[in-house]
Amino acid sequence: ELVSLLRLHLAPKPLAGRHALVTAGPTWEAIDPARGITNRSSGRQGYAVAQALAEAGAAVTLVSGPTSLNPPTGVRVVRVESALEMRAAVLDRLPEMDILVATAAVADFRPAQKASRKLAKTALQGPLELCVNPDILAEVAAHAQRPKLVVGFAAQTHDALALGAAKHQAKGVDLIAINDVSQAGLGFGSEDNHLVLIDAGGTHDLGRADKLMLARALVSHITSLLSSPTLE
Amino acid sequence: ELVSLLRLHLAPKPLAGRHALVTAGPTWEAIDPARGITNRSSGRQGYAVAQALAEAGAAVTLVSGPTSLNPPTGVRVVRVESALEMRAAVLDRLPEMDILVATAAVADFRPAQKASRKLAKTALQGPLELCVNPDILAEVAAHAQRPKLVVGFAAQTHDALALGAAKHQAKGVDLIAINDVSQAGLGFGSEDNHLVLIDAGGTHDLGRADKLMLARALVSHITSLLSSPTLE
Repeated sequence: ELVSLLRLHLAPKPLAGRHALVTAGPTWEAIDPARGITNRSSGRQGYAVAQALAEAGAAVTLVSGPTSLNPPTGVRVVRVESALEMRAAVLDRLPEMDILVATAAVADFRPAQKASRKLAKTALQGPLELCVNPDILAEVAAHAQRPKLVVGFAAQTHDALALGAAKHQAKGVDLIAINDVSQAGLGFGSEDNHLVLIDAGGTHDLGRADKLMLARALVSHITSLLSSPTLE
Repeated sequence: ELVSLLRLHLAPKPLAGRHALVTAGPTWEAIDPARGITNRSSGRQGYAVAQALAEAGAAVTLVSGPTSLNPPTGVRVVRVESALEMRAAVLDRLPEMDILVATAAVADFRPAQKASRKLAKTALQGPLELCVNPDILAEVAAHAQRPKLVVGFAAQTHDALALGAAKHQAKGVDLIAINDVSQAGLGFGSEDNHLVLIDAGGTHDLGRADKLMLARALVSHITSLLSSPTLE
């Protein structure tokens, strides 16, 4: 905690004056007041990215789905539940942002209907109708008020690199960080991760490390991209 | 922590020699390795019941769905994810149990198919086929090796008492504890709760209090039922 505070205040501030928005955690797509669809994201990687950006001097807003994590010191937190709420929270703040890092595991689908009262078992007998959630990352990347640097995350359990590279192209983001969640002890819910970055310059394997170390390496990469002439 | 330890060792032990099984938390019904259906249960009420039973001298096994809670001191914890895993963990241990307290918010339904790899968005376009989960509480209540005392929990957002009373009858349990999760600051995810007990003797309102206080009041009620001639 003290080490974190010292680092927050004493580390070099290459991102001073920059505004960064980070999304983190899962989203919760309610079926009724008690039940919902969600995913195994703990939010740890995103909270670590928010912390690393703050250490590097950025003014950080963290839009967080439901997690049990304490927010990093010096970071403004906006709590949301669903993908639709997360989208609204992100779009609201887009004009002032220089950087977006979308680590959240946004649900691709939500129940087509949300019951306002807890459903009886018998009301849930049929198949559950789903509808597609907005793709927040793709929307931001194509937005008129797009931040200078848009970074996406991709969690893949197989063919991580191929799927990640396809996602990098399809979404129009500047940088995509791929984590392979198929290995035990990595990714979802764990302290460690393995990140591979893909950008216009190629593939950069950050290796396996704890999520905060990887977040700091990612922020170094972000800092160098922001100062490169192609982006400015 | 010290107070808890003192109470664990110094409180009266009316349940010494009794074996109690407590289920707690939500269940996680996987759609694929990343996505699943679950509910808002934090597991707090169940963990508190396990603690209160241990304080009263019972040998407690806690079968817990995914939660972020630390297990109470002196309680054996068995971690499970799905309703099917919870059922197996409960039935395995049934023969030695005197008391079952089923606080877990077991999912009524699970996806009919569980994908072993993370599904692409396009694979999830149709409605999600669900199938009915076993009713662990009803199964235990009707089991040949039924514990002497079977206690169920019911979380209801409306008509709590009427639905709870119907559940008491339908499931063949000795005692049902109803918590109304429709009020802000109560029930799911919060520290406080409001419990009403229904048994053959009638309705007993334990009032609104923190979950550990209510757990201790519930355990007092369990103790008196166990020593009543109708049950023995």
